[in-house]
Amino acid sequence: MAKTMTPTITMITDFGNYDPFVGIMKGVILAVNPSVRIVDLTHEIERHNVEEALYALSCSCRYFPEGTIHLVVVDPGVGTGRRPLLVEWENSVFLAPDNGALSMLFADAGKCTVREITAQEYLRKPVSQTFHGRDIFAPVAAWLSRGVSPKKMGPKISDYKQLNIPQLLITEEGLRGEVIHVDRFGNLITNIQRKHLEAFEDQEFVAEVGGKQFHGFYPSYAENKSDAPGMILNSFDLLEIFCFMGSAQDKTGIRRGDRVHLYHGWK
Amino acid sequence: MAKTMTPTITMITDFGNYDPFVGIMKGVILAVNPSVRIVDLTHEIERHNVEEALYALSCSCRYFPEGTIHLVVVDPGVGTGRRPLLVEWENSVFLAPDNGALSMLFADAGKCTVREITAQEYLRKPVSQTFHGRDIFAPVAAWLSRGVSPKKMGPKISDYKQLNIPQLLITEEGLRGEVIHVDRFGNLITNIQRKHLEAFEDQEFVAEVGGKQFHGFYPSYAENKSDAPGMILNSFDLLEIFCFMGSAQDKTGIRRGDRVHLYHGWK
Amino acid sequence: MAKTMTPTITMITDFGNYDPFVGIMKGVILAVNPSVRIVDLTHEIERHNVEEALYALSCSCRYFPEGTIHLVVVDPGVGTGRRPLLVEWENSVFLAPDNGALSMLFADAGKCTVREITAQEYLRKPVSQTFHGRDIFAPVAAWLSRGVSPKKMGPKISDYKQLNIPQLLITEEGLRGEVIHVDRFGNLITNIQRKHLEAFEDQEFVAEVGGKQFHGFYPSYAENKSDAPGMILNSFDLLEIFCFMGSAQDKTGIRRGDRVHLYHGWK
Repeated sequence: MAKTMTPTITMITDFGNYDPFVGIMKGVILAVNPSVRIVDLTHEIERHNVEEALYALSCSCRYFPEGTIHLVVVDPGVGTGRRPLLVEWENSVFLAPDNGALSMLFADAGKCTVREITAQEYLRKPVSQTFHGRDIFAPVAAWLSRGVSPKKMGPKISDYKQLNIPQLLITEEGLRGEVIHVDRFGNLITNIQRKHLEAFEDQEFVAEVGGKQFHGFYPSYAENKSDAPGMILNSFDLLEIFCFMGSAQDKTGIRRGDRVHLYHGWK
Repeated sequence: MAKTMTPTITMITDFGNYDPFVGIMKGVILAVNPSVRIVDLTHEIERHNVEEALYALSCSCRYFPEGTIHLVVVDPGVGTGRRPLLVEWENSVFLAPDNGALSMLFADAGKCTVREITAQEYLRKPVSQTFHGRDIFAPVAAWLSRGVSPKKMGPKISDYKQLNIPQLLITEEGLRGEVIHVDRFGNLITNIQRKHLEAFEDQEFVAEVGGKQFHGFYPSYAENKSDAPGMILNSFDLLEIFCFMGSAQDKTGIRRGDRVHLYHGWK
Repeated sequence: MAKTMTPTITMITDFGNYDPFVGIMKGVILAVNPSVRIVDLTHEIERHNVEEALYALSCSCRYFPEGTIHLVVVDPGVGTGRRPLLVEWENSVFLAPDNGALSMLFADAGKCTVREITAQEYLRKPVSQTFHGRDIFAPVAAWLSRGVSPKKMGPKISDYKQLNIPQLLITEEGLRGEVIHVDRFGNLITNIQRKHLEAFEDQEFVAEVGGKQFHGFYPSYAENKSDAPGMILNSFDLLEIFCFMGSAQDKTGIRRGDRVHLYHGWK
């Protein structure tokens, strides 16, 4: 069923919901393919924050059907020489400026094909210097959704920009990770995964961030009846520091980018 | 025409528009049913505020066609023993955690069928402890939209949680209600309905909230030329206190939950 | 392909994304035409600000396919005698209250047909005094999308309300325009167009706003390496004052409506 249908296009931008930029991109898409489905992932990425866009994409894209086309337009370098990219990965297509927004695909390098978009016939003309979302990425996505092959969009390249994705370090005491996202609920999401926790017997570990220690590890939010923030493995299999019915960020002052030390604790 | 089409799914959550949680749920839905239509009712419900979700649903659901599937995911108890519910009411289906978010349907008890969702085969596995919107409610909605019968989702139950919906009291002086919502315009919406006003002859009544009195009753916002807040019957047939071109909330400091006394006034 | 498909409906309102007003309008539309596509342009127009809605529409509508139906519901006069309008312009249809929100179409008077919506059979009954978006504009849009002719909605009129659209003045020194919009990035967008800049040789001009002078004119945002705000021709061919990776509004304190003087500069 999905194979013969027109695929879905998703959008991540820092355009917000106040200006009509996102709606304009949708108009351009619908003018090319009036039957495509468009899903907003988020338009509230902090202005120019490519890392935030990368995080939003990396935790979302795997939930969409094969053939989905993902647009990521956070683009402080718009109008300069930075290239527009098309990446094929796991039967999906990703479009973004060459600024690292797709770095988590590049980390899986053997399986992804990266192209520079050079084909002029699929762009909206004239191409402006300030809105490539409208003039390049939206129309290319729309033509792809109509069945145009990614090969027609331009040649393969290998010198694309990669961002450093925060890595875990193994230290003498345990692990050193970082807070990679703070969500609407004030939950502090780290890059420590389920598999890393398996090294700790009996879930006896302590997290330390900015001099503050966190002890309890809970199976659900509501089971932390204390006032103190607790830890949980969230639905993306990442370690998260949370307050039940409150904001761990407000309570602790911890922010995205803060270091997280995880080490053995004793009951 | 509507009968043979795939139905619409609506969504109410407290997930906000910053994180991609809502988009992820849409991806899960589209992976099951790529031709379903999804309408956002609101994702800006205050964090964990089930009463707000209940209000948003109760003023929205009647405007959708028969067969619509309504998802309400405000879920502080996610991952605990609280059950996921499916309610059939007036040819529509409602999905929500068992936390009272569907209480206005239960008030119409003779006409609604309440089920606990127990069928495992329609869930996304493994079911996480923190995101049942993605793992339970989205896929169940999607399978329902493909024609799976509600009966297949689980057994009928009758011991679901009901919230106290603010009730009107008849007092010696008149009526006692409450402010149940403050909208984006700062309008103060009460639970006093058109029918309750019929007891007052010639629309001569006074509203008192937090020691402040409100007198004028207007047929439209623009007809209140004074600086003082006025009263109006809004489009949901509820009594509302408003300022023309301003915010009654900012002007009065009145908030959701404040008591409203309505009594006869003398000109 | 587009001709036989059901057209798209776009929406601009000041309803915000917190209340379910927009979703309710979509429910009303889908109850009439379950196969129509709806695109949100923006719902974050400042409360009652018809000029902002006019700007959002005027920079968006040209990107949508022929046959699109544009809804603009910013409506402080709802429930008074102000009329609901239907305007045909360039193979698209526009629906709005008679408050000037469509003034940029009227400026192209020879090419647009303006009707008052008087046909009762396409409205949702009873029509409320406070929510014509739901009771008039949404159902009329939905019926139009099903192929009902605009002629059936009501008679032509010519005494509709027009707003003064900020005009450029030619002064002794150069041009006098104004800041007509500030976008999410803090860019200050003026009503000075590409064609007006052609009068200045070698792009040697200075903009002065609120006593502050702006000199550099750049081909892209990223080419302004200085801390000082620069000028650019944006993707709508309008002169814009910007800071690279920052907010020109925050830096300068300039606001929408501020006068912009543009005159010859000397290197």
